[in-house]
Amino acid sequence: MIYLDNAASTQVHQDVLESMLPYLKEQYGNPSSIHRYGRLSRKAIEKARKQIASLINADPSEILLTSGGTESNNTALRGIVMQHPSSQIITSSIEHDAILEPCKKLSENGFDIVYISVDSHGMVNPLDLKNTISEKTSLVSIMFGNNEVGTIQPISEIAKICHEQNVLLHSDAVQAVGKIPINVKELGVDLLSISSHKLYGPKGIGALYIKNGVIIDPVILGGGQEHGLRSGTENVANIVGFGKACEIAKNNLDENISHMKKLRDYLIKKVSEEIPQTTVNGHLESRLPNNAHFTFLGVNGEDLIIKLDEYGIAASTGSACSVHTQKASHVLQSMGFSHEQITGSLRLTVGIYNNQKEIDQTVDALKKIVEELRSVSPFKDKYSFSKN
Amino acid sequence: MIYLDNAASTQVHQDVLESMLPYLKEQYGNPSSIHRYGRLSRKAIEKARKQIASLINADPSEILLTSGGTESNNTALRGIVMQHPSSQIITSSIEHDAILEPCKKLSENGFDIVYISVDSHGMVNPLDLKNTISEKTSLVSIMFGNNEVGTIQPISEIAKICHEQNVLLHSDAVQAVGKIPINVKELGVDLLSISSHKLYGPKGIGALYIKNGVIIDPVILGGGQEHGLRSGTENVANIVGFGKACEIAKNNLDENISHMKKLRDYLIKKVSEEIPQTTVNGHLESRLPNNAHFTFLGVNGEDLIIKLDEYGIAASTGSACSVHTQKASHVLQSMGFSHEQITGSLRLTVGIYNNQKEIDQTVDALKKIVEELRSVSPFKDKYSFSKN
Repeated sequence: MIYLDNAASTQVHQDVLESMLPYLKEQYGNPSSIHRYGRLSRKAIEKARKQIASLINADPSEILLTSGGTESNNTALRGIVMQHPSSQIITSSIEHDAILEPCKKLSENGFDIVYISVDSHGMVNPLDLKNTISEKTSLVSIMFGNNEVGTIQPISEIAKICHEQNVLLHSDAVQAVGKIPINVKELGVDLLSISSHKLYGPKGIGALYIKNGVIIDPVILGGGQEHGLRSGTENVANIVGFGKACEIAKNNLDENISHMKKLRDYLIKKVSEEIPQTTVNGHLESRLPNNAHFTFLGVNGEDLIIKLDEYGIAASTGSACSVHTQKASHVLQSMGFSHEQITGSLRLTVGIYNNQKEIDQTVDALKKIVEELRSVSPFKDKYSFSKN
Repeated sequence: MIYLDNAASTQVHQDVLESMLPYLKEQYGNPSSIHRYGRLSRKAIEKARKQIASLINADPSEILLTSGGTESNNTALRGIVMQHPSSQIITSSIEHDAILEPCKKLSENGFDIVYISVDSHGMVNPLDLKNTISEKTSLVSIMFGNNEVGTIQPISEIAKICHEQNVLLHSDAVQAVGKIPINVKELGVDLLSISSHKLYGPKGIGALYIKNGVIIDPVILGGGQEHGLRSGTENVANIVGFGKACEIAKNNLDENISHMKKLRDYLIKKVSEEIPQTTVNGHLESRLPNNAHFTFLGVNGEDLIIKLDEYGIAASTGSACSVHTQKASHVLQSMGFSHEQITGSLRLTVGIYNNQKEIDQTVDALKKIVEELRSVSPFKDKYSFSKN
């Protein structure tokens, strides 16, 4: 199989799995227990917290462990809203559903949510944000790198605007952490969501960076773990694996970026050259190093995925999560895409385990499949598809 | 090490770990992805859901996967409250903090919570509940088996009372599932919380049984996983392990109960015979098969734990989670214990991997330690401790 869906989930790194195994075997103590078993688990968590913090240049005390990126996003939004109940949140129209759905719920409950739009590359204009922030605004939440088209937002500039207006900034950085350098101190974000399984760690674990001094309300209450901000017995093995994944990501960041960029650029170049009437979507420079996103006019993206799967290639139309809602991509809609353009879209996301041969095989398969699908497309007369 | 803190957490069963490994290695697809990798993960989740459902005689569609028992409890309470915003919840004074803390929060926000008391054995009187339920009551939440003293509540009788009054019943069964037979259909509960790591499964995963027809609001929103009731990429490996643990628990239930009861009863008998001025707490018959809970007058439970740890024995004063709050056990307080009795308490919880030799060694150590601690106890003149 050729796995080109690394934005959906990644293979657990061998060293990550190795680091987890003792906590799935003999070191099974509850970290809250005061005996040796408990203390070993506690120690392992605190080591992992340091590794996670280090990847984004945070203090370990600023890392809140959660069950994943979605919980981190929910915690950031609800946590701030409960502290500022009659305020306003500004977010963008291209956020992941893990931001948009909690916002929708808050809005239904009478809370004020404002969505700012993006340009045709999926980019937020900081000036729009500046003009939208009001006295009522308590929080701005803008994603770091888009999960569908890979566009990286000008977070540093956005942070500056927020802080000039005394507004907190959260960023859903699930797709970005471990793939581009992120330094929370330099950026000036107040809250930042991270997911383990997007960076070669296990699923079911994530973190929310909360800048020292920022106060949030907990979403899940109970035994008082995580200083009362997230109760529940800690998922020790996954936390340890997450920590290890962050350490590996940090130590190999430059090398991984260069590997992914090389493959990604090669992929984009080859597809653009070999498959006519194809567009590359998202911002071409300010872009996650692993993301390639295309529109093949006249083709149905889902058919494309299924055919690619038959060739042993794992790809996606966009957000993996959207399969539950089966709605057209709100990201591409926000970027001004027509229904036809949205339908013909394909996301290919490379990872550290991919190689150039796989890209060659993928482009060969893609070329055949697009030709085949276009030959029976209802749009074939409209576009008079040419072969390359 | 002799591990007698199985109520805090349990060792992952070897077969459980084996079942998880493929999902930490080559089967890393996001269950929402439509390609082969995704479909394999989806299939694994649905198999696990069946295994979990089967342990409590539920339908797989009634199993909501969560990040653990605490999240399950929070989801049950908040999920019902959001559906019935001006109603009332009745719970007991001996619930785990994963019920009491969300209730406290709801109460601070103006929601009506009523706590019913227990007798000296930690038992709820169903008649008290009957007299407390009013037109306003939407939900009753009574734990199945107590995490500190092991008392099992008359859930079936409580369910009958709730349903006569058209009130929903939730039970925190985290300590009970996998240790005693639980049949949700026969019991008539509407919601029931389960935790994987209490039954030889991995940490960080749990479930909420939600009877078909019962409607709750989601706590964590996003990509729409779990039919929109719990968003976030599924923790596939841990779900698979949880399912396997449930299957193993079901297949070995009678044998495990008999093994634990034998050890537990032997432990209680030996301690009672060999250490004077000792009481056994909790209900003697209606009790979890793995729980032994003692008070050694004149002794500090924390000192006891630390000394036992030096002997290589893992024990607890009560709830592992209480270490964060460092408050005296609210369970023992509710049962009418004096501060002195609470201070002198020790919980020993056996598991499927313990044996009689370990119990003998534990009692020998305990006898020495209690004698030693009593010889320097500030209460030594008050009680004139005798040696056996």
